[in-house]
Amino acid sequence: MINNITEQEIVNLVIEEVKEHFSSSQLDYPFIPLGVSNRHIHLTKKTFEKLFGEGIEFEEMRPLYQPGEFASKHILAVVGPKLRSIPAVRILGPLRKYDQVEVSLTDAIFLGINPPVVNSGNLERAVSLTLVGPNGSVLLKKCAIIASRHIHMTNKDAQRFDIKEGEYCKVRIGGEKGTIFENVLIRINDSWKLQIHLDTDDANAAYAQNETFVEFIGKM
Amino acid sequence: MINNITEQEIVNLVIEEVKEHFSSSQLDYPFIPLGVSNRHIHLTKKTFEKLFGEGIEFEEMRPLYQPGEFASKHILAVVGPKLRSIPAVRILGPLRKYDQVEVSLTDAIFLGINPPVVNSGNLERAVSLTLVGPNGSVLLKKCAIIASRHIHMTNKDAQRFDIKEGEYCKVRIGGEKGTIFENVLIRINDSWKLQIHLDTDDANAAYAQNETFVEFIGKM
Repeated sequence: MINNITEQEIVNLVIEEVKEHFSSSQLDYPFIPLGVSNRHIHLTKKTFEKLFGEGIEFEEMRPLYQPGEFASKHILAVVGPKLRSIPAVRILGPLRKYDQVEVSLTDAIFLGINPPVVNSGNLERAVSLTLVGPNGSVLLKKCAIIASRHIHMTNKDAQRFDIKEGEYCKVRIGGEKGTIFENVLIRINDSWKLQIHLDTDDANAAYAQNETFVEFIGKM
Repeated sequence: MINNITEQEIVNLVIEEVKEHFSSSQLDYPFIPLGVSNRHIHLTKKTFEKLFGEGIEFEEMRPLYQPGEFASKHILAVVGPKLRSIPAVRILGPLRKYDQVEVSLTDAIFLGINPPVVNSGNLERAVSLTLVGPNGSVLLKKCAIIASRHIHMTNKDAQRFDIKEGEYCKVRIGGEKGTIFENVLIRINDSWKLQIHLDTDDANAAYAQNETFVEFIGKM
């Protein structure tokens, strides 16, 4: 029996309870949405035009989870020193100030390269690959890396996890192939959404899908 | 200045010191040799003869690390429901009482199958694949699994690690992509040599090679 209370008031009470439950959960159980990074390419405008043709527009196919980032409509073949090729590797936008191919170690073994594990944009030790597009090809001397595991977060998230820009942490994915990942870099920017990026080798080792949440364990 | 001591005596002293160091290290620092399991096939004699021809001999190419196990000279194409094929998947010997294809999740995604993570030989939930050989092909309804991480050890090893047959443990591979693997099954047999088997996804996630040693952390 419900006395002296309108339906709308009941709805509001339930909403408040649910909100409180989830906000307290977020504090007590620090889970982070997982984004699995498949192999992908970043290009400069100059390299893009060489591969696709001058005046060709760089077009978005669909937005990614991080604001401003997107999967473009454009794909390339990637060829390594064994002359084996991985077809249809997507270019992610926006266009960058550098050319970079991010691969997994599984890809690297297939292609016959030995790329370093480094943070995105850090190309001093990157190795060479050939990119083949519809308008031409280019041998990029220092482009291929295995991107370090990293977490995108805001300053507010960083406070909650008690961690700072450039620090490293450990995270865990449970299940039958439960796995703890060390050396996960913290990257902070208030325009980002909280998300951890692991490569396909990491995700597949743990039998994880994109929709998984990853457990924050603590600093390294 | 070296008095009253021959060169040979010095050499012997150094040898003893080194021996002592390594034998005590083995007890204090429980490292386990890593064997990376690439995709492979086990077959019954009947299925082998169907694929290669009656009366064809099952031949060894090279021995594996575990006594009695070997890589055979024989390879097959594996085809999944997407009709994509992985070529040259090797059959490991000796011939078994069951047909089994062990793949990584990376392979499974490529083939379009969803195999369970189970112990070798446990095929109740295994999924189907087609095997193609030089003398014919066969659709095996329940053959494909992702093999659980496991450690082969003797009873003496088990005592040293204070762990029992069928128990699970955690192990760690360090480095830039440092990774801790949970749910590693202990399998004991006095004819085996101490070795951990991880699949290519696990090894590549940790940027590990076959020659790596894995650190035993403890029971689950």
